[in-house]
Amino acid sequence: MTQHRSKCRACGEPAIIDLPRHNANFCAEHFQQLFRRQVERAIEDFEMCRPGDRLLVAVSGGKDSLAVWDVLLELGYEADGFYVGLGIGDYSVESADYVRRFADERGLTLLTTDLRDDYGYDVPTAAKVTKRVPCSACGMSKRHLFDKAAIDGGYDVVVTGHNLDDEAAVLFGNVLRWDIDYLARQRPVLPAANGFPKKIKPLIRLTERETAAWCLIRGIDYLVEECPIAAGNRHLHYKEALNSIEATSPSAKAAFYLEFLDKMAPLLDGRSAADAGELGECRTCGAPTTAEVCAFCRLVDRTAGHEQVPVEMVLKHRRSRR
Amino acid sequence: MTQHRSKCRACGEPAIIDLPRHNANFCAEHFQQLFRRQVERAIEDFEMCRPGDRLLVAVSGGKDSLAVWDVLLELGYEADGFYVGLGIGDYSVESADYVRRFADERGLTLLTTDLRDDYGYDVPTAAKVTKRVPCSACGMSKRHLFDKAAIDGGYDVVVTGHNLDDEAAVLFGNVLRWDIDYLARQRPVLPAANGFPKKIKPLIRLTERETAAWCLIRGIDYLVEECPIAAGNRHLHYKEALNSIEATSPSAKAAFYLEFLDKMAPLLDGRSAADAGELGECRTCGAPTTAEVCAFCRLVDRTAGHEQVPVEMVLKHRRSRR
Repeated sequence: MTQHRSKCRACGEPAIIDLPRHNANFCAEHFQQLFRRQVERAIEDFEMCRPGDRLLVAVSGGKDSLAVWDVLLELGYEADGFYVGLGIGDYSVESADYVRRFADERGLTLLTTDLRDDYGYDVPTAAKVTKRVPCSACGMSKRHLFDKAAIDGGYDVVVTGHNLDDEAAVLFGNVLRWDIDYLARQRPVLPAANGFPKKIKPLIRLTERETAAWCLIRGIDYLVEECPIAAGNRHLHYKEALNSIEATSPSAKAAFYLEFLDKMAPLLDGRSAADAGELGECRTCGAPTTAEVCAFCRLVDRTAGHEQVPVEMVLKHRRSRR
Repeated sequence: MTQHRSKCRACGEPAIIDLPRHNANFCAEHFQQLFRRQVERAIEDFEMCRPGDRLLVAVSGGKDSLAVWDVLLELGYEADGFYVGLGIGDYSVESADYVRRFADERGLTLLTTDLRDDYGYDVPTAAKVTKRVPCSACGMSKRHLFDKAAIDGGYDVVVTGHNLDDEAAVLFGNVLRWDIDYLARQRPVLPAANGFPKKIKPLIRLTERETAAWCLIRGIDYLVEECPIAAGNRHLHYKEALNSIEATSPSAKAAFYLEFLDKMAPLLDGRSAADAGELGECRTCGAPTTAEVCAFCRLVDRTAGHEQVPVEMVLKHRRSRR
């Protein structure tokens, strides 16, 4: 939010936010208009969804997922929410409250699943048992449950709140290693295929500062705290590096991600390992998988009987390794 | 240079440099061995040159170009130097002194050209007259004169001192814009073709900290000061951003550049605009060009009659624009 007496580019009234990338300031009304247009443009450019589609929005209680749910409803889409309880201590308890409140205040439909109640494990326990980084078990669990909820509920599309900063940081990480498989898969739309639902990221043209501003203006109360386990991970370093470039070259971040989609992604078509793989059905749950039993069911199988690991143990473990 | 009492990985004697990327410390002797091996490996991996080739090393008086000349002689190559006087005030006067001293002390052959004496212009004047960034006129002039000197002198290969930091920063800049043409051309070897000599960058596996250490150990006196016109340009920001990544993930910079060459460059083969272009001979100088008169001769034509512009004017101009 800007402090000096700048004026809205659209109407000349006092501005509440400056956007160096657009070389302009905006009042609350015209910032919302710009925000909606950026979402509409992403949806159109990448054929994300159409009026009449049934959307399922994966919500975490953070600014991005609540903002994307809100703006899609504003734009006239039919969108329900889906929340996964990850069992990450107080963070998960609070995030569930924010999501529930958002849905209740607006009379929206919210589906929920809880890893501990419904599958007998949680993210800290999975991390401890598998000895892998917690973010990996968490991401895999969420992807599986988003897919399942969409297929079971007859939704056309799964929506996630990934913003420009998220996507640019992931792209930077993939580029630093030139991981061609990951680069080939990094698209704002994954089409429905092989038993997977369509997945879209309508906020790719908006920064996290902009989604925070949207929430503030729209009176959306969200969990500001980041996941305590993810705090300090590499993506945050990548975001900082890109922000330092952005500070001297406004719009560099948007160019980096959007030009990738425009110029490089077409050259990588068909180079993802998933493009080549044959998919069967998981023997346990029926989800599409290249193995006999899918990664999610294997994780449940390994962790469901295990004694519950408190989140602090995973945090301590991470700290001692640094 | 490390201050604590670390030991050389190879011999256990006191170390003089720590290389986090190699997770090791080295004494002067074994650091030089590592340095030579990295150069040999780059030469082998990319078929840069062979014993018996006549090499022309483009030298600026800075650490990288003097180090590459020195190490190539060490490795048994026949290498002469080539210096271009750019007319950038005191910086050019001093850089010429360093180059001359290096060559004289070692009894080496040094060819020289001076933009002002031989072509009637200099970099500050070219920048002012063309109203383009000085680095652009400078780079184009040098490339032309390196090519010409190599062809005229019957050299097989032009050598430049670009190090890993340089190449990674250029790659980062090209990646931020996804400039496919530039990405496709970014190779450590450009083969001789269409009247251009072969060009190689044997220091791509070594950082600027390592080339500085080489010079220190080998008693090579070099100009520490950066070009005053280039100071503060975008490449320096890119280097800083990559260095911040490297600080938390040692070897990230090397992976970024070398994995690009390994995994991505092959996918870009044939996508450079130069691959498609038909080249004729410059009507004025005979150099290969897509135009009737080459860019160098056009620059000479525009600038040679112009009143000399002191370097300070170009610096002021840059500062006021920021």
